[in-house]
Amino acid sequence: MKKPLILVTNDDGITAPGIRVLMDIANEIGNVIVVAPDSPQSGMGHAITVDNTLHINKISNESNGIAQYTTSGTPADCVKMAKNEIIKEKIDLCVSGINHGGNSSINVLYSGTMSAAIEAGIEGIPAIGFSLADFSWKADFEPIKPFIKKIIAEVIRNGLPEGVVLNVNFPKLQQNEIKGIRICRQAKAKYAEKFDKRQSPFGKEYYWLAGEFECLDKGEDTDVWALQNGYISVVPVQFDLTAHHAIQQLNTWNL
Amino acid sequence: MKKPLILVTNDDGITAPGIRVLMDIANEIGNVIVVAPDSPQSGMGHAITVDNTLHINKISNESNGIAQYTTSGTPADCVKMAKNEIIKEKIDLCVSGINHGGNSSINVLYSGTMSAAIEAGIEGIPAIGFSLADFSWKADFEPIKPFIKKIIAEVIRNGLPEGVVLNVNFPKLQQNEIKGIRICRQAKAKYAEKFDKRQSPFGKEYYWLAGEFECLDKGEDTDVWALQNGYISVVPVQFDLTAHHAIQQLNTWNL
Repeated sequence: MKKPLILVTNDDGITAPGIRVLMDIANEIGNVIVVAPDSPQSGMGHAITVDNTLHINKISNESNGIAQYTTSGTPADCVKMAKNEIIKEKIDLCVSGINHGGNSSINVLYSGTMSAAIEAGIEGIPAIGFSLADFSWKADFEPIKPFIKKIIAEVIRNGLPEGVVLNVNFPKLQQNEIKGIRICRQAKAKYAEKFDKRQSPFGKEYYWLAGEFECLDKGEDTDVWALQNGYISVVPVQFDLTAHHAIQQLNTWNL
Repeated sequence: MKKPLILVTNDDGITAPGIRVLMDIANEIGNVIVVAPDSPQSGMGHAITVDNTLHINKISNESNGIAQYTTSGTPADCVKMAKNEIIKEKIDLCVSGINHGGNSSINVLYSGTMSAAIEAGIEGIPAIGFSLADFSWKADFEPIKPFIKKIIAEVIRNGLPEGVVLNVNFPKLQQNEIKGIRICRQAKAKYAEKFDKRQSPFGKEYYWLAGEFECLDKGEDTDVWALQNGYISVVPVQFDLTAHHAIQQLNTWNL
């Protein structure tokens, strides 16, 4: 059987330890091409580069022999460039991550990791975003490797429903502490924003965004609940944002 | 009755003609505070600024007397800063736009205009994004003014369902050519990407993103259909991205 062609990308940039781990796992399963941002892109959401030029660099293969490209673009740009400029063959799967930091709940909207997966989904490529709830560059990915392998294998075996990609989040736990994998819905949450106001050396005020995550959801079927209770969360994510349930109500308006 | 407090923002930046029009319309309905990016932010999707500092500038009131602030951040940042740093009172409505260029269908994901509206929605503020299918800085907003007024009035009168914001798109037509307002779903579409490859004066290759919009949806209840047939499209948009219909299927997997 022909090995699947797997596109690996992320939003922390090509130098992040998380993408090296994902690259190695993907390489055990299929033929891998990496197309990742040349610098960190956290919080980029679904940004694309429309008012600026884009660059692609092929970087020299390392000992693992995997073809690696960097682009000056966002995660969504990377997928667009991979699909339309770099890779001529059919891409069988796109995996994004492993993100240094969680992307559960409302974070899916801000996440560059997930925007890459969603962009692949729009292009009709089955796609998964992986994130570990540990911001450290020295995060330990060892405990989650077998789970990533299993999830990728199941996606290859079953495919994904049309218009759906997966948002996979791992708790920061040892392998024997992880209770299993749960299919979840996105928890209702928001940030209680705080802006940290400072002064530049020249006396000018500036701010840092410093919000605190606030879960507004008591459900036990959410990604936040799963992670807090020792499970890996898998949320099927769609990019049809229509609130279908609201259409009927709006049709009663005087418009 | 107390006038509603209306936050006006956009993604084309404070200097765009579209936001001046929206500001004036909002000013006829309520008390207006403008918090907009200090430079164009098209295609920013739901990006937020996490790895950099943010600035706020209060700019001098013009003849209209409306309080105006610019920030160095993205549209989503602007809403966060407006809500948590600039405006102390309860914001009754957020209007974003009028975008110079359409944001129907899949463009909702790439749109800075809509990310501002969605960010407001997350914060519990009723929100509407307005976009006109005309990229020109000299676009004629005259024909659509009465419709914007009507839609804002209806949102103030009825409120919006929880977790729902509106994506309003206008066709580029004269007022007597506009057939009315339709509540729609987001059309299924993608971009047939093309990258325009060029050479810098120094011989280095670079690219411009130059995709063509490709509607994959034959439905007559979509925003694309409405716009092509002379209607204004209103899509209720949600930020719970869970593909609820896929949960049962994923639960049959061997995970």
